[in-house]
Amino acid sequence: MADWLEALDRLAGDRAKAGLTRRLRPRAAGDAVVDLAGNDYLGLSTHPRVVAAARQAIEAYGLGATGSRLVRGSTDAHAALEHTLAAWTGAQDALVFSSGYLANLAVVRAVGAVCDLVVSDAYNHASLIDGCRISGLPVTVAPHNDPGAVAAILDAHPGRAAVVTESVFSVDGDLAPLAELYEVTSARGALLIVDDAHALGLLGAAGAGGVAAAGLAGRSDVIVTATLSKSLGGAGGVIAGPAPFIRHLVDTGRTFIYDTAPPPAVVAGVLAAVEVARAADDRRQVLFRRGAEVVTRLRQAGFDVRKPAAGVLSVPAPGPEAAVAWAADCRDRGVAVGCFRPPSTPDGSSRLRLTLNAGVSAADFARALNVIVECAP
Amino acid sequence: MADWLEALDRLAGDRAKAGLTRRLRPRAAGDAVVDLAGNDYLGLSTHPRVVAAARQAIEAYGLGATGSRLVRGSTDAHAALEHTLAAWTGAQDALVFSSGYLANLAVVRAVGAVCDLVVSDAYNHASLIDGCRISGLPVTVAPHNDPGAVAAILDAHPGRAAVVTESVFSVDGDLAPLAELYEVTSARGALLIVDDAHALGLLGAAGAGGVAAAGLAGRSDVIVTATLSKSLGGAGGVIAGPAPFIRHLVDTGRTFIYDTAPPPAVVAGVLAAVEVARAADDRRQVLFRRGAEVVTRLRQAGFDVRKPAAGVLSVPAPGPEAAVAWAADCRDRGVAVGCFRPPSTPDGSSRLRLTLNAGVSAADFARALNVIVECAP
Repeated sequence: MADWLEALDRLAGDRAKAGLTRRLRPRAAGDAVVDLAGNDYLGLSTHPRVVAAARQAIEAYGLGATGSRLVRGSTDAHAALEHTLAAWTGAQDALVFSSGYLANLAVVRAVGAVCDLVVSDAYNHASLIDGCRISGLPVTVAPHNDPGAVAAILDAHPGRAAVVTESVFSVDGDLAPLAELYEVTSARGALLIVDDAHALGLLGAAGAGGVAAAGLAGRSDVIVTATLSKSLGGAGGVIAGPAPFIRHLVDTGRTFIYDTAPPPAVVAGVLAAVEVARAADDRRQVLFRRGAEVVTRLRQAGFDVRKPAAGVLSVPAPGPEAAVAWAADCRDRGVAVGCFRPPSTPDGSSRLRLTLNAGVSAADFARALNVIVECAP
Repeated sequence: MADWLEALDRLAGDRAKAGLTRRLRPRAAGDAVVDLAGNDYLGLSTHPRVVAAARQAIEAYGLGATGSRLVRGSTDAHAALEHTLAAWTGAQDALVFSSGYLANLAVVRAVGAVCDLVVSDAYNHASLIDGCRISGLPVTVAPHNDPGAVAAILDAHPGRAAVVTESVFSVDGDLAPLAELYEVTSARGALLIVDDAHALGLLGAAGAGGVAAAGLAGRSDVIVTATLSKSLGGAGGVIAGPAPFIRHLVDTGRTFIYDTAPPPAVVAGVLAAVEVARAADDRRQVLFRRGAEVVTRLRQAGFDVRKPAAGVLSVPAPGPEAAVAWAADCRDRGVAVGCFRPPSTPDGSSRLRLTLNAGVSAADFARALNVIVECAP
């Protein structure tokens, strides 16, 4: 074996000893596993209208977009989705990316045209952290969910800064104090960038998201990013904000310009999903009721869990191996739960991550809670 | 208007004066435009088998993958596609990403575990350049397609380096001297990373790609990346290489771990496209014949064009405005061509980029060549 591969093998051995090996476990179509691991919060990935819209778009356009958005990849479906996402989130304009990761890389780099500092929440998602890195801007990491600390950082900085946070954090499921953060940023001429991936479709009137729920929709100094792969059941990402910022992204955003456009069928399916999601107060009610149920059930069983702000919550595990074994035992009993270990956890501790899914039947959900408790280490 | 938006407006004004404004022009399904702009080289995006496979997977799995690959997003379709791509390209293993951009970010960062220098071809794609940036490794830019210069850089470097190149370059369509580069890298213990995006499906036996065509398939010190959105007519990216490297990516690749998996329907459609592409010598012959035709026709008309190595070629324009006007006139006459201006061009000059497409009818192709010549500035 080549010596560089031997070096990689040694690193893999170190990870195995630390309980940090990851394994892909492909699922079959229509498997009977109860999904408390994915991000299909409203169950829209299999909604008949979403499936029908995607199928029709494949027939109409073919599979791929065949080029980048500016060269050949923009279709009427892309334009319609951007118009609809902007209207839903209350933004002037919106731009769709083939991945939420690529949207987050773009948004931080783009504010570099007018900002000279990024202030990033300590628990931000990997894509935002990479966005900070790739922006080339100086980055100050702020303590998690601490508007006072953000204010102190901004007060010490003479130029214009961008403050970057998630609305609902992806591992623990807690909510950022968006209104307080906005008071801090707007009073100091800073921009507020909010990754609404885990709140879009769930929080706010008609599911317009965490930014809308905080009363910040359409503000001229707020930029929203989100994925189209969670409550919308599809794939891709979006940046929504003031029209001049979106225009700046079209002209200069590297992960927009140099990437193949998302497939028309995905875009059309997501467009249908937005329409369903806007009217899905019933599904949102199911989701929030289940959030309360899971907290009650797990606290009764002795676990230290917090009420989820939307569809994500975290259950502490004694260590990485215990978390892996716990998730594996649940899986053996037909329940998929997330197993999060370093480096996927913001604080370096291991846990199960449970996600709520309004598409799961009530009986399956109740059984899944029992399984999680019974399999606990 | 907020002052940061005014600043963005001023920047937009500067770009407009320099002829560098970009505009999205959505196309309708089934538009009659002849496509010499996209990357659907083999015309597979609308191939009946590809469309049928994607449609069936939407029915079977729903639209989105509903989670990251490691949490909930891996399906049997993903595993099958990775197995097939590895077999096709002659690699030990392969890993699929939701975008070629994300694959390229991952590959450069991952070699950082065993390398302490990246040597990057001066004309590399934005995604490879960003991969270099985000890797945190020292980067030396090598003159375009110059194995001697690469050798000198490696000889002056005591540690292990990774040399990064495209096989067929995305704007000019020229071919990297892969065999010579490999002689240089392998003799010096360096890795060779090749982005085969514009050659997979086109070069090599059964379309196995530029790396296979150079006799380098399966080498233990070669890593291949590619998109699934060009000759395969879908979306996404892939890294193919030695199994320990793929395992390293599964365990540590941030743009793999923290990204929603590509939709099962896209993956299933691409899998069908690989099967078609492997047997598509007839389509490849059409493409290469057209490459010769376009060179003959454009040289007769006085243009300085090079014979394309695969499906991409470049036609110089006097400047960015002239390039935009040329492309617009072609479009008005029903022919889509690429218009590449700084910063999308490696050398800062503007040109039309033409792409060949075996799915275009012979009559449309002949007409398109006439239109391009007649619309020239």
